[in-house]
Amino acid sequence: MKKFNTDPDSKLRIIPLGGLEQIGLNITAFEYGDSIIVVDCGLAFPEDDMLGIDLCIPDVTYLKENRNKVKGFVITHGHEDHIGALPYILKEINVPIYATKLTIGLINRKLEEHDLLKTTKRKVIKNGQSINLGQFRIEFIKTNHSIADASALAVYSPAGCVVHTGDFKVDYTPVYGDAIDLQRFGEIGKKGVLALMCDSTNAERPGFTNSEKTIGKVFDTLFAEHTGKRIIVATFASNVDRVQQIINTAYKYERKVFVEGRSMINIIETAQELGYIRIPENTLAEIDQIRNFPEEKTVIITTGSQGESMAALSRMALNLHKKVTIKPNDTIIFSSNPIPGNEKAVSKVINELESKGAEVIFQDVHVSGHACREEIKLIYSLVKPKYAIPIHGEFRQRHAQAEIATELGMKSDHILMLRSGDVLELNSEKAEVVDHVQTGSVYVDGLGVGDVGSIVLRDRQRLAEDGVAVIVMTLEKGTGQILAGPEIVSRGFVYVREADELMEDAYDVLQETVEDLQFRGVTDWGKMKNALRDNLSEYIWRSTKRRPMILPIIMEV
Amino acid sequence: MKKFNTDPDSKLRIIPLGGLEQIGLNITAFEYGDSIIVVDCGLAFPEDDMLGIDLCIPDVTYLKENRNKVKGFVITHGHEDHIGALPYILKEINVPIYATKLTIGLINRKLEEHDLLKTTKRKVIKNGQSINLGQFRIEFIKTNHSIADASALAVYSPAGCVVHTGDFKVDYTPVYGDAIDLQRFGEIGKKGVLALMCDSTNAERPGFTNSEKTIGKVFDTLFAEHTGKRIIVATFASNVDRVQQIINTAYKYERKVFVEGRSMINIIETAQELGYIRIPENTLAEIDQIRNFPEEKTVIITTGSQGESMAALSRMALNLHKKVTIKPNDTIIFSSNPIPGNEKAVSKVINELESKGAEVIFQDVHVSGHACREEIKLIYSLVKPKYAIPIHGEFRQRHAQAEIATELGMKSDHILMLRSGDVLELNSEKAEVVDHVQTGSVYVDGLGVGDVGSIVLRDRQRLAEDGVAVIVMTLEKGTGQILAGPEIVSRGFVYVREADELMEDAYDVLQETVEDLQFRGVTDWGKMKNALRDNLSEYIWRSTKRRPMILPIIMEV
Repeated sequence: MKKFNTDPDSKLRIIPLGGLEQIGLNITAFEYGDSIIVVDCGLAFPEDDMLGIDLCIPDVTYLKENRNKVKGFVITHGHEDHIGALPYILKEINVPIYATKLTIGLINRKLEEHDLLKTTKRKVIKNGQSINLGQFRIEFIKTNHSIADASALAVYSPAGCVVHTGDFKVDYTPVYGDAIDLQRFGEIGKKGVLALMCDSTNAERPGFTNSEKTIGKVFDTLFAEHTGKRIIVATFASNVDRVQQIINTAYKYERKVFVEGRSMINIIETAQELGYIRIPENTLAEIDQIRNFPEEKTVIITTGSQGESMAALSRMALNLHKKVTIKPNDTIIFSSNPIPGNEKAVSKVINELESKGAEVIFQDVHVSGHACREEIKLIYSLVKPKYAIPIHGEFRQRHAQAEIATELGMKSDHILMLRSGDVLELNSEKAEVVDHVQTGSVYVDGLGVGDVGSIVLRDRQRLAEDGVAVIVMTLEKGTGQILAGPEIVSRGFVYVREADELMEDAYDVLQETVEDLQFRGVTDWGKMKNALRDNLSEYIWRSTKRRPMILPIIMEV
Repeated sequence: MKKFNTDPDSKLRIIPLGGLEQIGLNITAFEYGDSIIVVDCGLAFPEDDMLGIDLCIPDVTYLKENRNKVKGFVITHGHEDHIGALPYILKEINVPIYATKLTIGLINRKLEEHDLLKTTKRKVIKNGQSINLGQFRIEFIKTNHSIADASALAVYSPAGCVVHTGDFKVDYTPVYGDAIDLQRFGEIGKKGVLALMCDSTNAERPGFTNSEKTIGKVFDTLFAEHTGKRIIVATFASNVDRVQQIINTAYKYERKVFVEGRSMINIIETAQELGYIRIPENTLAEIDQIRNFPEEKTVIITTGSQGESMAALSRMALNLHKKVTIKPNDTIIFSSNPIPGNEKAVSKVINELESKGAEVIFQDVHVSGHACREEIKLIYSLVKPKYAIPIHGEFRQRHAQAEIATELGMKSDHILMLRSGDVLELNSEKAEVVDHVQTGSVYVDGLGVGDVGSIVLRDRQRLAEDGVAVIVMTLEKGTGQILAGPEIVSRGFVYVREADELMEDAYDVLQETVEDLQFRGVTDWGKMKNALRDNLSEYIWRSTKRRPMILPIIMEV
């Protein structure tokens, strides 16, 4: 039996630059000698306390410091948490991108938006093919996921082979294309795999994830049960197979299909161009035309399944949508589950829809795109890695995968629970974390990338909590005599027109402070500002138990 | 068969003053002639967009306008969403409170904190007893819930009898006291019930809610499986029966029990004083003593099961707790489910605990305190009301109860989906909404009640999103000549030290604006402020795509 060659003195370094502390921000560097390849380049959506932040991208200082080694980005699939940071990172590290056709199609849309198409090399790779990048050979292996054309990667280096699953599930009967290439996982495993980096998202869930195809039957049943009604289906924009199944059922029931929501329209366009979705002629129509069809002969496929406030479904629910008004004759199907953190937003949309008399169906019209425990066991059993590196998930999910690996007989020192930034050095002899490099979230806010940091965020949190009070005062140059002020202007603190007494007393506190400062002959601006801030702050806390941000500003004339 | 007397010309008014649009804020006025009684007086916790708000209480303008009619508060049980607003509302409407013993005990703690004990009349009522308040007679009926001593109410008026379930479940084998008095529900139903106001919280869930007692067995099993470990159990502070069962199991396994978290300690104290919990001698010990016992002989019962950032368990998880440090030998049991909206916070705590090597158990160690679909059907079938008024829940849950009522054969015009503020007038002939009174949330922020409204909140949201930029300028009185400024001070916008260029350009924009104003001879402060704000805002938007709040302040010397 042919084994892969491994050199016991050579060392592969695996450096996850994000993605191990949260959902999203997936990016991992593989380094061998003078070569680095980067697997995925995802964004993360901001946490609740990251006020005003639009999105987070990974800190790639390590890659910038080793720019000359970086051979390319290898992307497993086209979801935002795997491709979303590319346009930002490419501006700093311009190397080629390798991915399957649909993934490249979706990346192209992003690059176009950021005007990067001309300057970025992209290469379409087929699952089953390999590419050579520096000292690495990378093989793309067909998997299944909630987006078509997903790949696992076998990363070959002189130190051994590492299998990276990407996000995956095992779907024996996928809607589009082939099932996951389990044979190849077995074949590679048989030749000896150094490490398996496996998706942990559903590692806490028992059993197997259902096939995407089961949802097609659910749609058939639901459409049959709601023949007299207009049907609106909300789902994830990127789940092309789901959209395909809705279209299939709509065609069967002779309904026109209308697509709403910009991201949904974009992805369907790309999928259609590239042949990942087949839409029978005269099935799709423009939303402007919907009035021309009887309600019971229409289906709207829409974004907003997560209750996102600006998405099409949310606007429909709040009567803010220009072209679709929710009526008692509507049946709205959520073909999705709320992502943790979105439960309340989804619930609000359901309340709004139901209060307008519509019927809402939100249970059992979704399957996950991630492997549950039995599927994870299957992959481990095919690959039989020397080391396990659970990825994609918060600690609890990765920990659950570590438990699976333990159950399967792996020794605890062969199960590696890494943190982002850890530099794991490994070969067939041993695996150890030898270093830790800078990582973290870089915040994108509007056009700014990285110009909002922890200080600005802390200020926003403070402002959000109790507002701001500005104290202004004008002094005479030289004498330090007060020419105007002190005055107070506040926002987000109390409704000033109904808080006369409080504001008058606050003003008195400032007057007294100023008199005291003058009496003591204090002219140092820093001391004056501190005294004004402290005394006003103390008065406000005592009378309201609030702590607005206080900004003293002194001008000199 | 004796029927209750009802006068077909008389009319009962039911006015929900809160609680129909969200979880919490439960308060309902019953009005007949010159008498009003108020059932419950709950608070609600703020929504995510209510920045800085501590809690919400109901707007009781209607009660204040009819102060002379109000005979008293009748409280169904001691949860915050049913008693939490009492200290605030009593300051405006001081009438007696009627409730069962534990409920009054918990209310007393609140009144004490607000120094209202001396001025408030409280009367303990036993389930099974009735009280007369004005034209009403109110009968307390034993129910089961996740807090002991919960009551349903039968509200008798000359217009008929209304049954209000409060929060309830059907527990045939409760941990403390009797099962729900189903016989009495049946007996009252047989005599004729005008309307049933029934808890909707779990109306979307099929089947029956399990008995609280089933959890005792789960604890027995878990304690047996973790004999060598320290056990920490997080649960709801007010679930005295749950605490009783943890103590029972701890006693059986000869472990000392330590209670952490102020609200938990308070409630256990009250429950113990009033005889609702039985703690064997020498079972409880002070947390300061925990070092004196072997780990495997201790159990900590703690608050924080919802991931609340300041609660004891969260502080333990983050190594911020003074007396308890999480270690690999800890088993932490979440005897709770995350309340919608808390999923991510709970997940964060689980991640922290597991990353410290502790084992975390969070599935199947909780039962709900609310009736599922089959229990709701049971109550409807016993009470057989003329009208159904689903309460306690968002629209979707109340709608689910309406569907149950329909399934049971009630006509749709006898199922009344009210909104808070609706004035429902009903008697045996008909039921209709005849009016709508003022209702809503009053925000409590620190010591302020109602001084933060929509304008202040909008300002806080704006400040939270992109921060604030203050423009200050000093002018000469009379001439309008600029003596100092314009200057810019910003917070929460960008990190100024790293945005030199942006701030300099912003400063130039202001200079140009001022020059233009002077050139055009503009001296009106309003116009000057607008020009400064608009030009700076436009420049900032163009260069950053952000919209900080801009506050121009002009001083005169």
